[in-house]
Amino acid sequence: MIIVMEAHAREEDIQHVVSRIKELGLTPHLSQGVERTIIGVIGDERLIQKDQLSLLPHVENVIPILKPYKLASRDFKQTDSIIDVAGVKVGGKNVVVMAGPCSVETEEQLMITADAVKAAGALLLRGGAYKPRTSPYAFQGLGEDGLKLLAKAREKTGLGIVTEVMESPDVDLVADYADLLQVGARNMQNTKLLRALSKIRKPILLKRNFSATLNEFLMSAEYLLSGGNDQVILCERGIRTFVEYTRNTLDLNIVPAVKQLSHLPIIVDPSHGTGRHDLILPMSRAAIACGADGLIVEVHPNPAKAFSDGDQSLTPAVFQQLVMEVKAVANAVGRSLS
Amino acid sequence: MIIVMEAHAREEDIQHVVSRIKELGLTPHLSQGVERTIIGVIGDERLIQKDQLSLLPHVENVIPILKPYKLASRDFKQTDSIIDVAGVKVGGKNVVVMAGPCSVETEEQLMITADAVKAAGALLLRGGAYKPRTSPYAFQGLGEDGLKLLAKAREKTGLGIVTEVMESPDVDLVADYADLLQVGARNMQNTKLLRALSKIRKPILLKRNFSATLNEFLMSAEYLLSGGNDQVILCERGIRTFVEYTRNTLDLNIVPAVKQLSHLPIIVDPSHGTGRHDLILPMSRAAIACGADGLIVEVHPNPAKAFSDGDQSLTPAVFQQLVMEVKAVANAVGRSLS
Amino acid sequence: MIIVMEAHAREEDIQHVVSRIKELGLTPHLSQGVERTIIGVIGDERLIQKDQLSLLPHVENVIPILKPYKLASRDFKQTDSIIDVAGVKVGGKNVVVMAGPCSVETEEQLMITADAVKAAGALLLRGGAYKPRTSPYAFQGLGEDGLKLLAKAREKTGLGIVTEVMESPDVDLVADYADLLQVGARNMQNTKLLRALSKIRKPILLKRNFSATLNEFLMSAEYLLSGGNDQVILCERGIRTFVEYTRNTLDLNIVPAVKQLSHLPIIVDPSHGTGRHDLILPMSRAAIACGADGLIVEVHPNPAKAFSDGDQSLTPAVFQQLVMEVKAVANAVGRSLS
Amino acid sequence: MIIVMEAHAREEDIQHVVSRIKELGLTPHLSQGVERTIIGVIGDERLIQKDQLSLLPHVENVIPILKPYKLASRDFKQTDSIIDVAGVKVGGKNVVVMAGPCSVETEEQLMITADAVKAAGALLLRGGAYKPRTSPYAFQGLGEDGLKLLAKAREKTGLGIVTEVMESPDVDLVADYADLLQVGARNMQNTKLLRALSKIRKPILLKRNFSATLNEFLMSAEYLLSGGNDQVILCERGIRTFVEYTRNTLDLNIVPAVKQLSHLPIIVDPSHGTGRHDLILPMSRAAIACGADGLIVEVHPNPAKAFSDGDQSLTPAVFQQLVMEVKAVANAVGRSLS
Repeated sequence: MIIVMEAHAREEDIQHVVSRIKELGLTPHLSQGVERTIIGVIGDERLIQKDQLSLLPHVENVIPILKPYKLASRDFKQTDSIIDVAGVKVGGKNVVVMAGPCSVETEEQLMITADAVKAAGALLLRGGAYKPRTSPYAFQGLGEDGLKLLAKAREKTGLGIVTEVMESPDVDLVADYADLLQVGARNMQNTKLLRALSKIRKPILLKRNFSATLNEFLMSAEYLLSGGNDQVILCERGIRTFVEYTRNTLDLNIVPAVKQLSHLPIIVDPSHGTGRHDLILPMSRAAIACGADGLIVEVHPNPAKAFSDGDQSLTPAVFQQLVMEVKAVANAVGRSLS
Repeated sequence: MIIVMEAHAREEDIQHVVSRIKELGLTPHLSQGVERTIIGVIGDERLIQKDQLSLLPHVENVIPILKPYKLASRDFKQTDSIIDVAGVKVGGKNVVVMAGPCSVETEEQLMITADAVKAAGALLLRGGAYKPRTSPYAFQGLGEDGLKLLAKAREKTGLGIVTEVMESPDVDLVADYADLLQVGARNMQNTKLLRALSKIRKPILLKRNFSATLNEFLMSAEYLLSGGNDQVILCERGIRTFVEYTRNTLDLNIVPAVKQLSHLPIIVDPSHGTGRHDLILPMSRAAIACGADGLIVEVHPNPAKAFSDGDQSLTPAVFQQLVMEVKAVANAVGRSLS
Repeated sequence: MIIVMEAHAREEDIQHVVSRIKELGLTPHLSQGVERTIIGVIGDERLIQKDQLSLLPHVENVIPILKPYKLASRDFKQTDSIIDVAGVKVGGKNVVVMAGPCSVETEEQLMITADAVKAAGALLLRGGAYKPRTSPYAFQGLGEDGLKLLAKAREKTGLGIVTEVMESPDVDLVADYADLLQVGARNMQNTKLLRALSKIRKPILLKRNFSATLNEFLMSAEYLLSGGNDQVILCERGIRTFVEYTRNTLDLNIVPAVKQLSHLPIIVDPSHGTGRHDLILPMSRAAIACGADGLIVEVHPNPAKAFSDGDQSLTPAVFQQLVMEVKAVANAVGRSLS
Repeated sequence: MIIVMEAHAREEDIQHVVSRIKELGLTPHLSQGVERTIIGVIGDERLIQKDQLSLLPHVENVIPILKPYKLASRDFKQTDSIIDVAGVKVGGKNVVVMAGPCSVETEEQLMITADAVKAAGALLLRGGAYKPRTSPYAFQGLGEDGLKLLAKAREKTGLGIVTEVMESPDVDLVADYADLLQVGARNMQNTKLLRALSKIRKPILLKRNFSATLNEFLMSAEYLLSGGNDQVILCERGIRTFVEYTRNTLDLNIVPAVKQLSHLPIIVDPSHGTGRHDLILPMSRAAIACGADGLIVEVHPNPAKAFSDGDQSLTPAVFQQLVMEVKAVANAVGRSLS
């Protein structure tokens, strides 16, 4: 942490900051510039709060030097983490495609979709049983009945199951059925949910919130890691910007940025990321081209009759096309899609 | 709902849309333009999903006409709602100031603050017992012990209590202590929490999420209203933008915009909205000048030693100054601060 | 400037940075932390570029300490600047209202408007002769004929004239007619225009670009100041965000933020800032409440027939109401509106 | 255009709108819904302004149906435009790489770079002679001397020249030297510059502004096309968002979105788009994977000593690596890089 004093700070103001730093158990280090005095703080700045120093008289600015996350960082673990989801490795040389309907609607709809995405090359089946909808009048999911259908689909196809959990009291129930528990974008900072998930022995798919910075995203991962669950897969799914031609702005830049700062795998959700079925293929190719470890894609046998998210769902035929195109790009960047 | 057909759509494509509209129980209405055919949908468009029509062949665009919310709208209720919080009326001619520490830390800290804000003119006491923090290493609140201290402060000062509830299992416990239950910005779309709160008989303070549109904000209110709780107060607390000189961008424009579209009262949180104690006074004056029904402000006896949010907390003396300045502005716009 | 070395940087990497700093004519100052070595740079960091150091091997980050602007800062000039525009003082105790049509359309339209805004209390007359329109098919302004009409209106009413100049070749012509030359939001970083304006002896109204940070805004002012023209008035007119209920998001937070960092006056344009005539009054009151030195408002005798910006123009009657309301707020915050 | 009347609009309000529509030379078409009356406007809505109708009494909303651009749209021209730049075709099956320094600094620097980028596979040489810098204290370019050096580099290497023109008076001079004239992001809506460029017979590289919507971007192209110059290449170079780990947020989603709506080619600038040299390679691969027609990349023989933008410049060796990687991706998506 670096404390920048105001231009007109006096010696006693500086000494006040110096003694406060010592009081907090850290070591101050003065540097007298031409226009400003700068005070460096030596020690683990994560243990103190910025405003314990910024509010002292004649302090102009306090600048953190260390990243706020520790366990999620590459400084902590240099090698890429590989997460095992029902036997499927996420984060290694292979690119993994997860697919399925936005919502589990009926047994027929789910089984048709599960068979189709498996045939096309998906390795995991996604499907929502608990749906956080913007409108109270919209379909909210089948709940545990949806989980049971997902388990049935797993039995039939052998595909592992990815599904969302919405609050801490549901964690045990969902964990009984799911192979990979998804934290939705709206819950990325639901700290009670994160703490409950940090105590289970199943992998977590952590989706980035619409307005999360990279630091905030990795701090939510840190909740999981510091609580004892190191099986974390990150997922970019679009951020909120002024842009009008996509529902969200899929921010692929975060993929290589995360790869530098963290050891955790990161996949991309082009369905929510763009909100437009006609942009899913090009943006899926781009996601793999810039280094994503996989994709999670919405597929529905009849998107125009889907209970939710039809606009951003692919038909099985288009999904098959997606897998072929993504495979070609994966090969071009030295990876494969098994 | 208006369906815009593509320039090259043929008669059979148009008929396909027409029959789908009828199938959904609504009435189509054709309008043949020079470059495009437009199909109006007559009936309650809230009952169908946009993509049930947008995915039909040669549909270029589907444009909703009605607002998605009903009970929260001024069409539904023309007169301003006034919410009673422990005898304090929010939404009427008076402007209400709520104040207190970000977190309840100790009995001493809370009592000093409660006495001070009451003396200055606050009518409700805010204080966090459950804290959703970005970092797992930061102070997470005292929990029920915090609630008990808040109750003690109410007993001592007579001020009603405003405090946050973080997830549905805590609703009953928090409702036992609080006079006004706050839904934090991160939980604005926690639909399970909203549903649980819609079943209780206590007023709710619903904070806008960092990236919520006005429609999304009012749809979260609609969860509460449609579930049976019409005691809802809205709160603007800053949105996420590219701007760097404030922690968030306090968006006062939403105050008069809400007043036109909804009957619900709206207050402003300049502490979170700016993240800077030195901007709280001017932005509080501005909030009241543009029509806000009140303020919620963080106050701490010693901000530099606060467990959280010291940067955006006022000392009691500065808070007293705020109340005086706000009172003058309230009078200038034909309101009062009792 | 602070250079943060990577955790694994070796002694020779540090020495490399140290010698580069000396080569650039500055003095390095080492601080050995627990996890990182930090190198402070003593001297005027504005003279070097960040990337001259950030690209050296094993440098993790380079953090500027000083503000990039000098002449626009309060460190440089402590007292508020007061700009004289045709005898009207902007930046002092008085709040100044400028008003008039978006575009000069006809002599009749201009004269009616000029008389009306003068009668209501405006001290300066705005009107566009050169219009930067989004569409090539829209009205682009009357050019010099518009300037002549503005001069005629000044003669008739005595009101000083505010009008936009769009590129450097037009500066002399526009300066012949205008009392205050406006740089539009789209031209805030048109450096050739800024340089040309820095050479004239007329005051400049510099509007903030839709996506300008505070630093960028003040750096554009610095172009004017460093070129020799210190008669600069800043103007907030809305930023681009995800928000959908206003055309732009009027960011009033910048008003008190500028007041702290700079000595220049700042006014607010609620017409462009919101794009909605029905939000102009509340947001004008708010602008003055948080400390703005004035307003610039669009007024048209018949907004539904305006050649441009009718949606955000007031009728003369509503403008009169605005002035009365703003006057009350100005008085409440210790200022006046003459 | 669709006019939505307020719920409580009376018959006379509706008739008022109807007669105004007729007055404007268009045909009204009524549709009586359950909650609202809707009036469709038949005819070319581009000829009228939205607010000529939205300001009539009891109009709730006016919704445009047609795109505001015409010549830039795929409705106007179905086949992809291919632009010839000094013999290099942009927009066809081949992917074109343009590269060179941010600023032309010295003859030696330029010749080394030109030779290196040519050897690596670039087909056009970029280099700035006129530089719009944020700071008045930063290097502003060599001006015409820079143009002369670029011409010399063209003579030596045979590479066509891409360079920026900053305002209309410079158009003829820059056009004498350049093969492709660049409109920088800050000038995307400099309409006087666009008009001047629409009159010359050289191709234009139009960069998207930081905060431009797709409509605004294509409307700036429309200025060029409607003025008579149909040789337009679009360029995405990053938008302004809340994101902190990139200087801008490279928005690749616009690439496939433009391909659907327009016939114009679009290339990507990953240097400005990310502002980080270490993200340029992955984002270049992604750009080509999602369908971009080319790249424009900053290369400098010694980025740490560059006069500008060193942070986002590649060394010649890394650029060579980029070309190899991009070639592999281009092949994987059925294109080639000659």
